[in-house]
Amino acid sequence: MLFSQRMAGVRRSYIREILKVTARPEVISFAGGLPHPESFPVQAVAKAAADVLAESGPDALQYSTTEGFAPLREWIAARYRERHGIEVSADEVLITTGSQQALDLIGKVFLDPGDGLVVERPGYIGAIQSFSLYGPDFRPVTLTEKGLDCTELERVLKAGGVKAMYLVPSFQNPSGITYDLETRQKVAGLAAEYGALLVEDNPYGELRFKGGAIPPIRKFTTGPAILLGTFSKIVAPGLRVGWLVAPTEMRDKLVTAKQAADLHTSSLTQRIIHRFLTDNDLEAHIESIRSRYGAQRDRMVAAIHERFPAGVSCTEPEGGMFLWVTLPEGISARKLFEAALARNVAFVPGRPFYLEEVDNTFRLNFSNASLPAIDEGMDRLAACIREHLS
Amino acid sequence: MLFSQRMAGVRRSYIREILKVTARPEVISFAGGLPHPESFPVQAVAKAAADVLAESGPDALQYSTTEGFAPLREWIAARYRERHGIEVSADEVLITTGSQQALDLIGKVFLDPGDGLVVERPGYIGAIQSFSLYGPDFRPVTLTEKGLDCTELERVLKAGGVKAMYLVPSFQNPSGITYDLETRQKVAGLAAEYGALLVEDNPYGELRFKGGAIPPIRKFTTGPAILLGTFSKIVAPGLRVGWLVAPTEMRDKLVTAKQAADLHTSSLTQRIIHRFLTDNDLEAHIESIRSRYGAQRDRMVAAIHERFPAGVSCTEPEGGMFLWVTLPEGISARKLFEAALARNVAFVPGRPFYLEEVDNTFRLNFSNASLPAIDEGMDRLAACIREHLS
Repeated sequence: MLFSQRMAGVRRSYIREILKVTARPEVISFAGGLPHPESFPVQAVAKAAADVLAESGPDALQYSTTEGFAPLREWIAARYRERHGIEVSADEVLITTGSQQALDLIGKVFLDPGDGLVVERPGYIGAIQSFSLYGPDFRPVTLTEKGLDCTELERVLKAGGVKAMYLVPSFQNPSGITYDLETRQKVAGLAAEYGALLVEDNPYGELRFKGGAIPPIRKFTTGPAILLGTFSKIVAPGLRVGWLVAPTEMRDKLVTAKQAADLHTSSLTQRIIHRFLTDNDLEAHIESIRSRYGAQRDRMVAAIHERFPAGVSCTEPEGGMFLWVTLPEGISARKLFEAALARNVAFVPGRPFYLEEVDNTFRLNFSNASLPAIDEGMDRLAACIREHLS
Repeated sequence: MLFSQRMAGVRRSYIREILKVTARPEVISFAGGLPHPESFPVQAVAKAAADVLAESGPDALQYSTTEGFAPLREWIAARYRERHGIEVSADEVLITTGSQQALDLIGKVFLDPGDGLVVERPGYIGAIQSFSLYGPDFRPVTLTEKGLDCTELERVLKAGGVKAMYLVPSFQNPSGITYDLETRQKVAGLAAEYGALLVEDNPYGELRFKGGAIPPIRKFTTGPAILLGTFSKIVAPGLRVGWLVAPTEMRDKLVTAKQAADLHTSSLTQRIIHRFLTDNDLEAHIESIRSRYGAQRDRMVAAIHERFPAGVSCTEPEGGMFLWVTLPEGISARKLFEAALARNVAFVPGRPFYLEEVDNTFRLNFSNASLPAIDEGMDRLAACIREHLS
């Protein structure tokens, strides 16, 4: 009676609950989704903060426009042009309080209860949680090694009622899968053909350590599309600065929703990030993150190949922060989680990334663990799995 | 078809549209709601930022808990105990991205379409906009010089269906009115009697420059209550750090909604504020703001008494940032606004603060104007009103 109906089906994030259990110092945790703290450019951010406050202190501390700090929006638009050859104007960019906020705003502005929403299977849990508050009818479509299963996608679209599609085509969370070029082109064509709003999230795109760059799906579509991005993985998540790119009419509605949500994102953190981007060699900084995560990913994948029993498979991501393990049918990752925790090693069971009952998969994070922790943790985990399978 | 039904009735903030028109440098504007930039403790914030990044840089840049930075929550709880004798535990405090976000979270967690929501008449436009996305049935209750009209309030509550009441009892925006002690006690009693959730917002409470302190309504109620607060007016709004205080079960649901909304408020700005509060003489800082705003308020009220024609009245706030002018019946503040803008002086017409057609009031902001600007601007405005009335 006290709470709204929309809260009835929503639970606290399963991952956040798991993180509480796995926070004991003796646990080697591959459960979280954190960037490596040693990758944060602490001194450069401190310098940027000092410069911003010395040179434009009152503006950095005052209320500012909902749309965001204009030079930062320009920077984002220019990067789309330079990196992907996508024409984006600064006017189409809306700064958000992390890209998580973009999910909430999109749900609010576009989704009525019962609207069809295509999500990946498995899908990003933070998006599912955020959208679920707006009561959509989720239409999960299977993710294959090459990206979304386009035959299944077309069947779902043909069935009607799909308003939007939420996709993470590069180094997806939780699976680490990247859509290949052909799949991107097909998805773009289908979205346009059926008039579904394409919501393309790309938090990890800059973190490619293998293979060649593939343009965003948005580059191939003629239909309505929104791009999401964030500085959380290339600068730091604690600043809470992300963005979305949307055509003007949509952007206007999203600005209205953001006014109501928090007026604007911190003027200070927006300016700190802009200053950091302007005064530092961003490519060198990103390269150091790529190199770190690439080495950690290699070590983890090698450990799986060498030590996990036959019948257990994993994705081999070309970037990002996560990989995805599949156990033989009928083996419960949730039971394995309990056993693993008893041996002081942790992961996230796959169940919450699905809208239906699937229990033989789990997610491993490789961005936040040192190489020795990966060695030791994967040893423990391999032993658990062997025991669990026998 | 593209946008959700909830967006149909929502427009961009009227005030933000007005601010664009009044931003020309030759306009003396009393329209905004900005703190005075000279009141920002720029150097102390810069010192706090440098210390935080030097001493706990990786933590300040990493993801953190949705609930907020624990020492900051402790500080807030302690201040309620010390200033108001209200027992608040840190566990009940949720840090929000400005107190605007608290409004959105409360709407999301408590309001179903059609739920009765008591708001003040005139009321805070940012709250009306934010709540309206959740489709409540607004039940405006008239604000008198002593606070909410309790006879009217009881009639509204008796009629049934009221889920919650949103009130700003100290130096209200837009009116500058402060509820007296008796009204607070009566409102507390009525809220508890009818089981309405009391949402008590207090952005300006620390900015009292006349009269004695009066405790929050929450102190007198035995019913469900949520307190909102912000550092925007005593430190700086550009940091986007506010809070809410709610009993545990409610706080839990609000945390879930916040996870979905933006994961957490910037770790860096939370720590900067906490460091600022710990290392500086906050009382002296607030006293300097009070003294500035008090002088500006006095000058503005004196100008109204001396120069505005008979039949025009105003509130005489004991704190805060706004006062409220009432024109004789039938005189349009929106027409006056056009005439005033032609003379390069601006205010916000009262219309958007009401849910019905009322056009003979307007809001003046005194926090953001220098004394010479107040002298000159009030001269221009007085001339406009005299012309307009004749």
